Amino acid sequence: MSDDFKPIKPSILPGFMELLPEEQILFNQMKNTIEKIYQESGFAPIQTPLIEKEEILLAKAGGETEKQIYRVESDSKNMMLRFDLTVPLARYVAQYFPSLQFPFRRYQIEKVFRGERNQRGRYREFYQSDIDIIGHNELSPLYDAEIPSIIYRIFSALGFSDFKIHMNNRKLLNGFFEAIGIQDKVSVLQTLDKIDKIGWPATEKMLQDQGLSQSQIEQVYTLTQISGTQEEVLGRLSALDYENETWLTGLSELKGLHETIQDFQVPLTHYQLDLKITRGLDYYTGTVYETFLTGYESLGSVCSGGRYDNLAGFYTKEKLPGVGISIGLTRLFFQLNEMGFFKDRFKRYSNVLILPMDASQIQGAIQLTAALREAHISSEVFLDEAKFKKKLNYANKLNIPYVIILGEEEIKTQIYTLKNMEEGTQESLSLTALINFLRIHI
Amino acid sequence: MSDDFKPIKPSILPGFMELLPEEQILFNQMKNTIEKIYQESGFAPIQTPLIEKEEILLAKAGGETEKQIYRVESDSKNMMLRFDLTVPLARYVAQYFPSLQFPFRRYQIEKVFRGERNQRGRYREFYQSDIDIIGHNELSPLYDAEIPSIIYRIFSALGFSDFKIHMNNRKLLNGFFEAIGIQDKVSVLQTLDKIDKIGWPATEKMLQDQGLSQSQIEQVYTLTQISGTQEEVLGRLSALDYENETWLTGLSELKGLHETIQDFQVPLTHYQLDLKITRGLDYYTGTVYETFLTGYESLGSVCSGGRYDNLAGFYTKEKLPGVGISIGLTRLFFQLNEMGFFKDRFKRYSNVLILPMDASQIQGAIQLTAALREAHISSEVFLDEAKFKKKLNYANKLNIPYVIILGEEEIKTQIYTLKNMEEGTQESLSLTALINFLRIHI
Repeated sequence: MSDDFKPIKPSILPGFMELLPEEQILFNQMKNTIEKIYQESGFAPIQTPLIEKEEILLAKAGGETEKQIYRVESDSKNMMLRFDLTVPLARYVAQYFPSLQFPFRRYQIEKVFRGERNQRGRYREFYQSDIDIIGHNELSPLYDAEIPSIIYRIFSALGFSDFKIHMNNRKLLNGFFEAIGIQDKVSVLQTLDKIDKIGWPATEKMLQDQGLSQSQIEQVYTLTQISGTQEEVLGRLSALDYENETWLTGLSELKGLHETIQDFQVPLTHYQLDLKITRGLDYYTGTVYETFLTGYESLGSVCSGGRYDNLAGFYTKEKLPGVGISIGLTRLFFQLNEMGFFKDRFKRYSNVLILPMDASQIQGAIQLTAALREAHISSEVFLDEAKFKKKLNYANKLNIPYVIILGEEEIKTQIYTLKNMEEGTQESLSLTALINFLRIHI
Repeated sequence: MSDDFKPIKPSILPGFMELLPEEQILFNQMKNTIEKIYQESGFAPIQTPLIEKEEILLAKAGGETEKQIYRVESDSKNMMLRFDLTVPLARYVAQYFPSLQFPFRRYQIEKVFRGERNQRGRYREFYQSDIDIIGHNELSPLYDAEIPSIIYRIFSALGFSDFKIHMNNRKLLNGFFEAIGIQDKVSVLQTLDKIDKIGWPATEKMLQDQGLSQSQIEQVYTLTQISGTQEEVLGRLSALDYENETWLTGLSELKGLHETIQDFQVPLTHYQLDLKITRGLDYYTGTVYETFLTGYESLGSVCSGGRYDNLAGFYTKEKLPGVGISIGLTRLFFQLNEMGFFKDRFKRYSNVLILPMDASQIQGAIQLTAALREAHISSEVFLDEAKFKKKLNYANKLNIPYVIILGEEEIKTQIYTLKNMEEGTQESLSLTALINFLRIHI
């Protein structure tokens, strides 16, 4: 290229997340921790294409979703990038129905795309991390209690000691609306979902605008204010004495959830029955979940989901009830990172850097690296000619915890000096001792 | 939905790969094996957005690439899906140059998109698995010998004992073309690249059409027929006695590669110097690699790459020489799967299925599952009401290796019977003994 060639300014589109390697390592650790717990809980992985047919993705969508869609074109037409993992799951289960075993327990951790308004921490390409348990015709409500046990294990494993899973039941809410004579249940549900964000006075105003009477509003207020221990909440709900079947079923499911969740070893301190949790989507029909990290309330719910009656009605006549949750990984990572959660956790995959003093130690340095890798100890060798200070600086900048400097003496004696870069200590070790030492200390 | 509602037929676009969960597990195992070796070799992960600016992706592209591109539209314009991981890497290194340490060792295993002609085993959305080592201004040729050691470790770890890394040097080839007076080096390179596929007579014809004289063609033939052990090939090349600097540099690099690669512990049986390997892309400037699995030659090269002088000239004035390789994971998996490579390897993440005999053992079954998961043993509990035969069938279909059936007796005694589903054997164990047994046997 000629000297007056002007490079194109390297940049990415606004609203897309891109990390430096040391941040990417942390992101991957978070993702792998979650995946490991899915696997330990007997969920199988699936992946679906990022591009799907328009007729599939838009079978249900509309309104906001449709406006946010990324359309794709090549020689083919009517293609789109998926905007969630639920629609592809529904299509997948309907498509491979005869090959799947039910209950079908699947996890999927992949990217989805939404043309969201450009806003700090809101990304247009982001990871969702979903699990669902899907039955054929029936799915025991006991599974509703398994889901929070997985949420509990995930956030514990991610390093949070203090968080709470909030739960409610849509049948209970619908039974309540029925009992007090509310017609437009969905609108009221969506309003209630905002109480914690907008406060009661604004909620009351919205309910008035939606045509609720003062008496109805008072009963809504009473319901959403119910709080206390799980037993207290259940006691107060029973005392309300509504008698329609939907209410009674909801109440009984909520009681069952509370009993079974303890068998799944979720501590009483980490969940609560919360009548204000509704999950606005009309999709849910039973238990609903939201998860809040104590000290990080501004993040909102970091893991949400619920029970639905029928996953894939748009693609099959088979009845597929299920229960599932989703974590928005990209946003969660961004926010935790901003709040300093990962401070001091930065690390590099490479645990050992081998530095030959000069060219005559290169062969020995390469052989030592090969021996460490053979022992599955992550290691690298610096092979460029450079001032020694520059080489050490490389180890420092990358937070490589151990360095072995190879001089004439080390090559001759085959005794290696392992420097701990953080503590400044060092050990003199034979190859076998070196491998054993590193296996224990890394 | 009303009874006369007609579901949309669930399907994906042609040319996209989608796997059943048991195949996805195998795919993920293959991907994780490769990633682990990248990490052990001190490469750091990066991920880049799937959607990039048109001006970035098309800075160099043209011809075939441009025709295969997927364009993306939302409220923004001029967006595309990436067609490889090299262009995004170049953009990334140019963009974050001041924050990176050199040599910059990165790996990236992500999906790319190409609107390829629809053909069995050719996918339009596929994983590439890339590593590169990138220097600033300089990068020691010793790194060219590290790359094959990583290829060697990968295919060994994937379970292949017999494969060969073929290597050549573009400087050697260019020096040769110079010596025998060939002008259009790139066209001839691309023709030579096809010898093994189309045979010599067809190659000869193409070289004639490209205007080579009979004498030039004979010299080309002589060069590409050089074979034997690495020492023999190097000896025959030295005997050719060309004297231009490009040739001599290439020959010296090839000799150095042969020496250093052995320090990296690649056995002589697993690589060869092959003058027919050229890698048609004009991008490469030194060492080039291709990898062939013995017994699977119809796959072509399963891992290819090489050395280049400057990665990111379109986006920065910094000189960034590097060396790297790429594996097309999706196609490789498809082909190996078709050829039966994964036969009998199918497995399920869940290792233990717990079956309560009837409703009164459900609580105990849930508690046992929770205890196993706490011990990081992947397990699940069957909670739906179903005939016992159906429950056992679930374990069989999913290849779950161990089943624990919980009856009254087991709950009372807290002694569990662990059934090995494959061998038909069983053990009676307390919870602690059960966990220890499974830790050893899974």
